[in-house]
Amino acid sequence: MKKIGVGLIGSGFMGKAHAIAWSGVRAVYGDVPEIRLACLADASDDLARRKASEFGFATATADWQALLADPEIDVVSITTPNKFHAQMAVAALDAGKHVWCEKPMAPVLEDAQAMLNAQRRSGKVAILGYNYIQNPAIRHIRTLLDEGAIGPVNHIRIEMDEDFMADAGAPFQARHEAVNGYGAIDDFGVHPLSLIRTLFGGVAEVMCDMAKPYPTRKGKDGERAVEVFDVATILLRLENGASGLMALSRTAWGRKGRIAVQIFGEKGSILYDQERLNEFQLYLATERPTEQGFRTVLTAPHHAPYDRFVPAPGHGLGFNDLKVIECRQLIGLMRGEPGIVIDFEDGMKIERTVAAMARSFTERRWVKVDA
Amino acid sequence: MKKIGVGLIGSGFMGKAHAIAWSGVRAVYGDVPEIRLACLADASDDLARRKASEFGFATATADWQALLADPEIDVVSITTPNKFHAQMAVAALDAGKHVWCEKPMAPVLEDAQAMLNAQRRSGKVAILGYNYIQNPAIRHIRTLLDEGAIGPVNHIRIEMDEDFMADAGAPFQARHEAVNGYGAIDDFGVHPLSLIRTLFGGVAEVMCDMAKPYPTRKGKDGERAVEVFDVATILLRLENGASGLMALSRTAWGRKGRIAVQIFGEKGSILYDQERLNEFQLYLATERPTEQGFRTVLTAPHHAPYDRFVPAPGHGLGFNDLKVIECRQLIGLMRGEPGIVIDFEDGMKIERTVAAMARSFTERRWVKVDA
Amino acid sequence: MKKIGVGLIGSGFMGKAHAIAWSGVRAVYGDVPEIRLACLADASDDLARRKASEFGFATATADWQALLADPEIDVVSITTPNKFHAQMAVAALDAGKHVWCEKPMAPVLEDAQAMLNAQRRSGKVAILGYNYIQNPAIRHIRTLLDEGAIGPVNHIRIEMDEDFMADAGAPFQARHEAVNGYGAIDDFGVHPLSLIRTLFGGVAEVMCDMAKPYPTRKGKDGERAVEVFDVATILLRLENGASGLMALSRTAWGRKGRIAVQIFGEKGSILYDQERLNEFQLYLATERPTEQGFRTVLTAPHHAPYDRFVPAPGHGLGFNDLKVIECRQLIGLMRGEPGIVIDFEDGMKIERTVAAMARSFTERRWVKVDA
Amino acid sequence: MKKIGVGLIGSGFMGKAHAIAWSGVRAVYGDVPEIRLACLADASDDLARRKASEFGFATATADWQALLADPEIDVVSITTPNKFHAQMAVAALDAGKHVWCEKPMAPVLEDAQAMLNAQRRSGKVAILGYNYIQNPAIRHIRTLLDEGAIGPVNHIRIEMDEDFMADAGAPFQARHEAVNGYGAIDDFGVHPLSLIRTLFGGVAEVMCDMAKPYPTRKGKDGERAVEVFDVATILLRLENGASGLMALSRTAWGRKGRIAVQIFGEKGSILYDQERLNEFQLYLATERPTEQGFRTVLTAPHHAPYDRFVPAPGHGLGFNDLKVIECRQLIGLMRGEPGIVIDFEDGMKIERTVAAMARSFTERRWVKVDA
Repeated sequence: MKKIGVGLIGSGFMGKAHAIAWSGVRAVYGDVPEIRLACLADASDDLARRKASEFGFATATADWQALLADPEIDVVSITTPNKFHAQMAVAALDAGKHVWCEKPMAPVLEDAQAMLNAQRRSGKVAILGYNYIQNPAIRHIRTLLDEGAIGPVNHIRIEMDEDFMADAGAPFQARHEAVNGYGAIDDFGVHPLSLIRTLFGGVAEVMCDMAKPYPTRKGKDGERAVEVFDVATILLRLENGASGLMALSRTAWGRKGRIAVQIFGEKGSILYDQERLNEFQLYLATERPTEQGFRTVLTAPHHAPYDRFVPAPGHGLGFNDLKVIECRQLIGLMRGEPGIVIDFEDGMKIERTVAAMARSFTERRWVKVDA
Repeated sequence: MKKIGVGLIGSGFMGKAHAIAWSGVRAVYGDVPEIRLACLADASDDLARRKASEFGFATATADWQALLADPEIDVVSITTPNKFHAQMAVAALDAGKHVWCEKPMAPVLEDAQAMLNAQRRSGKVAILGYNYIQNPAIRHIRTLLDEGAIGPVNHIRIEMDEDFMADAGAPFQARHEAVNGYGAIDDFGVHPLSLIRTLFGGVAEVMCDMAKPYPTRKGKDGERAVEVFDVATILLRLENGASGLMALSRTAWGRKGRIAVQIFGEKGSILYDQERLNEFQLYLATERPTEQGFRTVLTAPHHAPYDRFVPAPGHGLGFNDLKVIECRQLIGLMRGEPGIVIDFEDGMKIERTVAAMARSFTERRWVKVDA
Repeated sequence: MKKIGVGLIGSGFMGKAHAIAWSGVRAVYGDVPEIRLACLADASDDLARRKASEFGFATATADWQALLADPEIDVVSITTPNKFHAQMAVAALDAGKHVWCEKPMAPVLEDAQAMLNAQRRSGKVAILGYNYIQNPAIRHIRTLLDEGAIGPVNHIRIEMDEDFMADAGAPFQARHEAVNGYGAIDDFGVHPLSLIRTLFGGVAEVMCDMAKPYPTRKGKDGERAVEVFDVATILLRLENGASGLMALSRTAWGRKGRIAVQIFGEKGSILYDQERLNEFQLYLATERPTEQGFRTVLTAPHHAPYDRFVPAPGHGLGFNDLKVIECRQLIGLMRGEPGIVIDFEDGMKIERTVAAMARSFTERRWVKVDA
Repeated sequence: MKKIGVGLIGSGFMGKAHAIAWSGVRAVYGDVPEIRLACLADASDDLARRKASEFGFATATADWQALLADPEIDVVSITTPNKFHAQMAVAALDAGKHVWCEKPMAPVLEDAQAMLNAQRRSGKVAILGYNYIQNPAIRHIRTLLDEGAIGPVNHIRIEMDEDFMADAGAPFQARHEAVNGYGAIDDFGVHPLSLIRTLFGGVAEVMCDMAKPYPTRKGKDGERAVEVFDVATILLRLENGASGLMALSRTAWGRKGRIAVQIFGEKGSILYDQERLNEFQLYLATERPTEQGFRTVLTAPHHAPYDRFVPAPGHGLGFNDLKVIECRQLIGLMRGEPGIVIDFEDGMKIERTVAAMARSFTERRWVKVDA
């Protein structure tokens, strides 16, 4: 691969994050080909042109299908609203492009399956933007688990909490309609599930409860019933036999980007919180008892690929840096190297787990993920 | 009440804690009658005599029924193993004594009910040793909730974790036998339930899962099957409509006395962790957004009854001090004053919630607490 | 020693703490003689009688010298204002009593020396109430240092901060007059110095700065000049050669009982903060680099004498419990056992260090402690 | 300004950070001109070419003076070793370029002055790479101070600690020679001083102590005397009258990138630690006393310019992001907008403060910064 030609569809929050990642990945890593920012597509010509200029893309278009037709584009970043993912990803794969699609796959399970099918028939690389798994802290936790540092894991707990829906007085929005999803379990749940998949493997069975802290919100024409669930609590059984717990809230005042992970093993424990993404905690029961304690480990150059960003320990990576790591994983996969990602295969399992949760809640019973 | 005559049955961990509380309560509070440590009963005359001397009791006996016959004894502390609680508490109440019984009530629900019946017919004060609710931090959280500081509560999470069962290599003990209980849900679950009752009221419905991290342990004659569950995870619905979650583990390496409470309301959140019992955290969504954050509040003299122990803020109370507060509550109740305690009525509701959890696990379904 | 007869002079904050300690020490430890609370002295008969009743003392008096004449009293707790310490301690020692005197020794260096002289000629035990050194966490840090866990210590920092003088609008009080001391260096500085002495030994040289955040305060007749210094910062050289730093503030908003210690050695570091008195932090550079971190160790039964209070780890001791430990140390010394205390010898060195700080500030230069 | 032509001298740690910043600033901010990465200079043609390709620069050279001659270059990033700063910065300014030079200015005070003189005569923008001041958290602390949120500041403490010199067994290096500086006070001290300058203004007077934890290290030909001081402790008086403290260590095991700031004012306090760069703590004495506490505020879009990087709160910026903010400040200044930076004027004051510390240590006395 001499150069990588990049197309970007969508230029909002995540589109910008992809653009920053594509712009920086070569300087950060030094071991990737030249990146050519070929074309940016967005809803209108004007918007596309303005963002193409800001983000440094050579051309712009309001026609994403034209972008896919460009033979100089090797890989397409898809960062549009979820409902467009399937159509675009399928078309991109069918056009012979690699795909970097933002999570989740699609609001409808069949569409997600179509995406996976397209990837399988194309043989191209197709990954999802679950960038939290790219954190050097998470990578190192995975290494510790693989080494058996805390022994076999027998119990896990994961919480994901933010507060952007916590204001009871905020008006009714489109995302309060059932047509746009279940609420916490698909909007949030997929992140913890991506961590579970990366660290432990699959979920076997779920028992899910959901709640609406604010059953109605102010609409244009008076109070409207909220159709989604901002809170969910889920009992889990992992495929490896461990018991687990997941708790999700979009109405948890004070939580901003919390994804708190607790991992309990036969010889120790590991803790992590996304709000302090540059550290994790480790307890080893093998130490002298009088000095056993949770140690706070700051990520450092010896936790690859932290070293690519800063050569000094404890200086901190940010959210956008995780996207650069994800981008580098994608490039490696495109070159046939192994990589740690959530690809469409993994993504599909995550989607199926979410579907099982929804069914469990409706039927008030344990549901097997693959049933 | 000119003097309070005290009898103590049992002189182990909790017996000692009761003795320390009875010895110190008058000096700490200054507003209670003279306490007369009348008689200590334990399994043998020797042990009873030795402990009576150490703890400052006037007399000693190996016959707890003799202790109950002493007319100078007004109140009896019962700190024997759980299986003796019912018999002793019923006898004490029938003998016209007030009762301070360690938690939980009894291993068998019918016995707990008998205790409650005895209390009802005697009209005496009968409380249980749920001393975590006595913490000035918890008291102040209750005040904040009553004031509506964080608005109506819509979601709670409580975890209780320790690691005294975490060593997979530790041998099989009596407490691994089913005859001695379910495991985490009765041994631990009652503590979070006492906090839920104090702060929010009753639990309406539960969905419980339990797990055995180590299904067998080394016995005298080879590997033996562990019959109890060291881990439990429970979905909750409170009577006030809030959704909730409880997680319990006796095998959580690194956790020593963790009872972590998360309370989410319409206008803010409150956090508490028993391992740092002299502080709590409060988030108020009513503050200027740019400075909103969880504030760590150290308990201080203005959080009654902290002031009775130390006149300076942030100097710290300990586990045994909470027992002194509980003792003072009991004395108040004996004088007809109101008090914050878990009495036998409340205790019975806790026992019923535990029973509902057990049934939910067995039947793999939601169970109503009062069904 | 069959029984210990105790006299208490003063019944305020620290008098109560002594009373609670004397009442509880036997039940907590189980290995000390019977304690007889013989006599309590305070400013008036009424007050003395009321407190004697509350604290459980047999007799009361307004004449502390009469208390000293009581032949059944073996040891005297002195908890009166600092200016009375010297007179009372000297008299008590001359009367053949052991002495447990609250810190500091005396506002005037000569008086402190007189106290030490009295102790020397009496041969009795005389200790000061520096109870922070009794914390099992501090004891264990001392053990770790003795074992060389973090290698030779080369640098330390100690901060002591509270905020009871932080309100600029609070009126002028007696303690703002120079006659009552320097301010932070004697009121606070002695505590960090007691920790330095316990953990590292003596201070060789000091360079001190002091500051008045609020140079005037509202008096009865208008604004008055504050004569003491609420803030002090001190560069230190320890006798063992380590460099150090001390910072003291009584006007540090938000700090309630902070005594933050940082200890840096050749192989690791130790941190401690009195506001979280049941934990300390340890960093060992000898561990695998990728998992090095500050571990938070919760005190537990294996950190003696925590086990005397609670048999479960992480359950927490409080401020008053430290006073019980101090009391037990005193009793041991009275029986000829070794003990960890600040006796009058050590106390005198602390007083001399404070005097050197004051001189350093006045003369704006480094001052040797023993010069 | 239609386009900005950029030259970069040096391609090591900081050179890479500058390159990443120049590459990303336009995509991040969207309000800056097109950035043209014109030329990269480094010690050899080979290295320069390789890095120019990685970092995306159009041309490469081993002759930094040739770079300065390029008329299409508007601004030069200087990221070479400190001893080259003066020569290059002076030449760049004299060549009519704006300058972004890494900190500190120069090892010799006269050279720093020459840099400032060159800036003054050129009228060009010249700033130093003190990027910690660019953190949205620090920016917001400055806003709070300006608003008087905590009232007039009367006392500050700043610690900067890392452990890259903490290994006593590590061999003697060039940086242990006096010719390369004093040690902690210039290598580290300048960072806290940049924060002091940004938040409070100038330092009036200093009293400095320095220490060598390891006086000798293993050299090629046996043990060699270390000539620099890895530890320094400094008493400060700020120009605004506040008392202060600075502590610096390069041998503080466990500290990785700690810059801990404590700010005490008449109405509250603020805390910050660079190891957790996405949060700060605020205590307001104006709140209801029973809920006063240090609140941990996570940076968020409302703390500009956090919003340029991520639209969601609590998601975290990293070290390299701070460099992007610094780059944007520089661009603004080049356009005549105001900006928060350490320019050569401010930098010179920092250098003079360091010189005063060194003199204070040698002469064992307080030294006025401008004396």
